[in-house]
Amino acid sequence: MSDLLESALNPQSVAVIGASENIHKIGGRPIYYMRRHGFGGRIYPINPSREEVQGLRSYASLAALPEAPDLAMVIVGGEKAVDAVSQCASRGVKSVVVVASGFGETGEEGRAAQRAMVDTARAAGMRLYGPNTQGLANFGTGALAGFSTMFVEVPPADGPVGIVSQSGGMSAMAYGLLRGRGLGVRHVHATGNEADVTVSDLAWAVAHDPDVKLLLLYLENVADPELLARTAAYARERDLPIIAVKAGRSESGQKAASSHTGSLANEDRTVDAFFRHHGIWRVRDPHAQALAAEAYLKGWRPEGRRLVIISNSGASCVMGADASEELGLPLAELAPATRADVASRLPGFATAVNPIDITAALLSNSGLFGDVLPAVAQDPAADLFFINIPVAGAGYDVEAFARDAAAFERSTGKPVVVAAWQDTVAAPFRAHGVPTYGNENDALGTLAQLVSHTALMRKAIVPWPAAPAPALPAGTGRFLNEAQSLGLLAEAGVPVVAHRLCRSAKEAADALLAVGAPAVVKACSGDVPHKSEHGLVALNVGSAEEVAALFDRQWARLGALGAAQEGVIVAAMRRGQHEFMVGARVDPVFGPVVVVGDGGKYVEALQDIAVLVPPFAAADVADALRTLRIAPLLDGVRGDPPLDIDALAQVVVAVGRLIVDARGSIASIDVNPVLVAPRGQGAVVLDALVERGG
Amino acid sequence: MSDLLESALNPQSVAVIGASENIHKIGGRPIYYMRRHGFGGRIYPINPSREEVQGLRSYASLAALPEAPDLAMVIVGGEKAVDAVSQCASRGVKSVVVVASGFGETGEEGRAAQRAMVDTARAAGMRLYGPNTQGLANFGTGALAGFSTMFVEVPPADGPVGIVSQSGGMSAMAYGLLRGRGLGVRHVHATGNEADVTVSDLAWAVAHDPDVKLLLLYLENVADPELLARTAAYARERDLPIIAVKAGRSESGQKAASSHTGSLANEDRTVDAFFRHHGIWRVRDPHAQALAAEAYLKGWRPEGRRLVIISNSGASCVMGADASEELGLPLAELAPATRADVASRLPGFATAVNPIDITAALLSNSGLFGDVLPAVAQDPAADLFFINIPVAGAGYDVEAFARDAAAFERSTGKPVVVAAWQDTVAAPFRAHGVPTYGNENDALGTLAQLVSHTALMRKAIVPWPAAPAPALPAGTGRFLNEAQSLGLLAEAGVPVVAHRLCRSAKEAADALLAVGAPAVVKACSGDVPHKSEHGLVALNVGSAEEVAALFDRQWARLGALGAAQEGVIVAAMRRGQHEFMVGARVDPVFGPVVVVGDGGKYVEALQDIAVLVPPFAAADVADALRTLRIAPLLDGVRGDPPLDIDALAQVVVAVGRLIVDARGSIASIDVNPVLVAPRGQGAVVLDALVERGG
Repeated sequence: MSDLLESALNPQSVAVIGASENIHKIGGRPIYYMRRHGFGGRIYPINPSREEVQGLRSYASLAALPEAPDLAMVIVGGEKAVDAVSQCASRGVKSVVVVASGFGETGEEGRAAQRAMVDTARAAGMRLYGPNTQGLANFGTGALAGFSTMFVEVPPADGPVGIVSQSGGMSAMAYGLLRGRGLGVRHVHATGNEADVTVSDLAWAVAHDPDVKLLLLYLENVADPELLARTAAYARERDLPIIAVKAGRSESGQKAASSHTGSLANEDRTVDAFFRHHGIWRVRDPHAQALAAEAYLKGWRPEGRRLVIISNSGASCVMGADASEELGLPLAELAPATRADVASRLPGFATAVNPIDITAALLSNSGLFGDVLPAVAQDPAADLFFINIPVAGAGYDVEAFARDAAAFERSTGKPVVVAAWQDTVAAPFRAHGVPTYGNENDALGTLAQLVSHTALMRKAIVPWPAAPAPALPAGTGRFLNEAQSLGLLAEAGVPVVAHRLCRSAKEAADALLAVGAPAVVKACSGDVPHKSEHGLVALNVGSAEEVAALFDRQWARLGALGAAQEGVIVAAMRRGQHEFMVGARVDPVFGPVVVVGDGGKYVEALQDIAVLVPPFAAADVADALRTLRIAPLLDGVRGDPPLDIDALAQVVVAVGRLIVDARGSIASIDVNPVLVAPRGQGAVVLDALVERGG
Repeated sequence: MSDLLESALNPQSVAVIGASENIHKIGGRPIYYMRRHGFGGRIYPINPSREEVQGLRSYASLAALPEAPDLAMVIVGGEKAVDAVSQCASRGVKSVVVVASGFGETGEEGRAAQRAMVDTARAAGMRLYGPNTQGLANFGTGALAGFSTMFVEVPPADGPVGIVSQSGGMSAMAYGLLRGRGLGVRHVHATGNEADVTVSDLAWAVAHDPDVKLLLLYLENVADPELLARTAAYARERDLPIIAVKAGRSESGQKAASSHTGSLANEDRTVDAFFRHHGIWRVRDPHAQALAAEAYLKGWRPEGRRLVIISNSGASCVMGADASEELGLPLAELAPATRADVASRLPGFATAVNPIDITAALLSNSGLFGDVLPAVAQDPAADLFFINIPVAGAGYDVEAFARDAAAFERSTGKPVVVAAWQDTVAAPFRAHGVPTYGNENDALGTLAQLVSHTALMRKAIVPWPAAPAPALPAGTGRFLNEAQSLGLLAEAGVPVVAHRLCRSAKEAADALLAVGAPAVVKACSGDVPHKSEHGLVALNVGSAEEVAALFDRQWARLGALGAAQEGVIVAAMRRGQHEFMVGARVDPVFGPVVVVGDGGKYVEALQDIAVLVPPFAAADVADALRTLRIAPLLDGVRGDPPLDIDALAQVVVAVGRLIVDARGSIASIDVNPVLVAPRGQGAVVLDALVERGG
């Protein structure tokens, strides 16, 4: 357990600055909660105008305390909060939770006050939570430095879930939803403005609590991706799933986030890629987190995706089949022996193929579920089970169904989920510990998430070997010219088009012989990164005379533009099967990220791209390519041969390694197009643009 | 009210063949239900082995009844059901509901028995419901020729919703979900195998019940699209929204549907287009139908999409902003005066821009909602209102918020929805009649659906003027050749590429002069619809000699293929800005449908297409084009001028009219590519293939 966890999440003593007698007030609640939920340490109410608070001795100030408390909560606001933080620093408090709003989220003045508090805290080696936070709550120890109403609304129970959230509201909501489903929750922590401690810090701490089996995060920005990545790596090692909500996906959402917790915007597709890379599953909201929790806590980590659907409604079988196809959970093809066995247990008009429709005959024979389940269980093609009961009630022995389903799950260890919207039907299944959902999309969506997340968590991240930084050509311009850019790629092992950088018409004419006609002739200057917009690219040039004339024209045009005349490139005209783009950039938050997608002129407009976070393997690139809209073309259609995906993947890996190895000396790499040939025939970069880093 | 409705949905007398004393049995339930729910007509139990059933006189047979009942329910199965249908026909029964399963959904034998029942019924002018149906239920009259368990589970209440479903289970589920939300339901009808009466028939009947204000359908196939279209037209006229579930969206789903109700597969994108065309809103399942119902029943038919979000949680404001952007409900930009007014009513650190974050200050000032709402209401930019309360409870005056929200809705008439997952928070809003959802996605999704569906319902369908059928060239081959196909399009007013059909090398060489060099030379034969696969297309042909040589080669190749040598086309080489495809076909269920999409070689692989159902206007085509993945290119990007969408739309309308006017004589039209030039410069068809109809 880290120091952070010790002093803040497991303090031996807590001071409440601005303590209140009224347990419904923010200054009253923490004291009330700690005493109610078994906090074993010392509580020090601080309120100069009272002798006692909630039956405890009240102190006039921190200075008056008999000891320096591990943790102090600052309930007072504005200037008083800033003062209180100073006093905590002087008194030797280890962690301070600043509840007050009105700081970094409001404007420049608030930001300055917030900075001052952090400076004070850091100078004293004290960690600061908030400001603008609902605080911390550890139901394992009863240390409740928080004031959420939800702990009154839904009684706590210690359990295997940890919640870490920028927003107090969302931490409370996730807590309430989980408790409403009967799941125990240990940690409920909010970080607010994250002036010092971030979600990543607390996630790291909570991940080290060995009793936590599921970690839920809510973020409005990813403040410390490096620590979050390390937390995720540690969590994967100990099989701790992390499900995250990252709000502010859209432009309007990011604007709202900035006025909520003062968060800076993250590029959303990069967030997606970052989470995926680190095995963190991203969902829309705390409802989705709570929905999936029970299935995770069952300890199911399914590797197979083949689904068996059993229902007493034919229509539900139809809709279940639709949903399974959409969710990528193919219906298990049952063996003939299984089908015969199932059929022998069902009435004649029921359906013994998958989905298995046991029909309304269930009404007259309550044993049907119990009969059918073991018959299916023996089939090795069945990975996942879904029981859908859209209609039941009087006359149905639901208790028997539930008992049979639970026994089935216990004996097979295979995931079994139920959809039932009627409380009377759902309750017995829940009582028997079978995860039960209000509708089939929630049930099947959870299974699909579980399988996909398990695969993500089990995927090894293979580090790239350290390599010396590439030597960039001397110069100060923002961009390398094309010849320099291609040269850098070539040194990094990327196949680039045969080309010559020419400084005279004669050289250019000679170059045509070297690269072969027809050729491409294009001006080369770091000052003109977008050549075609200036008419500085000529295709399909066949004769030495034409090349020489083009040299003169382009050279002159560079001069006319006031651009450095660095040369004219004569390159081989190459045709391939499909043009891709590969990009890399250093994201201000996440560091190097790589993009691969459909290439050509309309990359920006059509945005058919996939984002990858380094380090990644060629196989990861191949997977990413399968997510593109043009994916159907990869295998060859309409008589085309399949594309050389391996060669493209090698290019993407090399570009990724180049920007990583550059350690900041390269800001971005834009490779467009990469011409990809049929399988076995390689890929070649036709054009590239490298931007220097800061 | 139609005859159908009269005899089946409002019968004066009902016979139950296979009546049972046990009210939990299928033969016992209808009698029990009718007596319990106020059926005012005569009930005739038929059971030869009893004197009395549930206190009513029991009859040995239909023949023994004192009158021919309007409606008879056949509970008995197999051969007995077939016999009972015969007896009903002889006795002059008007409508018969056949409950028994084991007919059309099981195989050829069952289908034959089913056909026999329908033949008997039709010969006698009797309508047949089912077989394999849960029956009919009209809570307006208490006529309950159905046996659903759900009517025991959730007590009925007459109300403004009609449910018509192929599946009994789904009708019961929709009923139960609506009743669970406190909404009244009048009609709950299931059609099962639809051997005679279809969902379309009953939808037509129920749409004519003036008390019905919302119609919910569940279909596994669309058996009678023409009647469903007429029903939808009538419903739009009287402002009756229809929300449909069409299951069997996927291949596995369609397979399951075939064994459930014996349904034939519908092409799913065509189903989508059909529903959209007729103003029917399609959703995933009965949960989605029930979810949206209350907002529809409020009578809201919003035209504006601009949303105001108010929450006591900043995080909810962030996630609400994300969701609003995704759902196409832009955040209303409040006027400075509104913002100032709102700000004056909120604490300093709250947010007076939209989303409006009234913060946890709500805890200490319960009047904040009531204060803020009227301030916002005055702003003309606000069309829709969303109140999100993710956390409340002890200390919050939720009753006051609910009262204020309801008063606001009453006074403005503008849609107001709430998200609150805590029962204690949701209950007061529900009690005040404010539609309240468990989470923001459901709340905002419902608003988005309501706005979009309202727009669809209000959209006029302008009929195409009747026109004489096009004269197809004589012949019996499946395909017209290219020259004939282009000719037919040209006659229909579609601009086609300049071309000549040549019967000799000399004619071909001359044609080059007429169309201009360079040209395309391609073999023309109705026997070879896919020319390029046979190497019968030459591009960029510049000289008369080449043309003549190509003529000879292609002519000979046609002969070698054993294809009719109908000529060689010499056509102008045209370049445009973007290639589209336009297709039309006569769907076996829906009749003529038209497709427009991204053109070129990979149409089938990439499937970037939109489906349109005739009749449609050029503006509808433009809307459809906006749904394509290549939509960003329509307006011109990377220096391209905008495309001539109007010209493309005219082509699509002309192709649609051509296949409609052909009245079956054309099976399909494939136009690929249509070359679209910059705006104002038209579109031209380069290649076309017309397939004759049966």
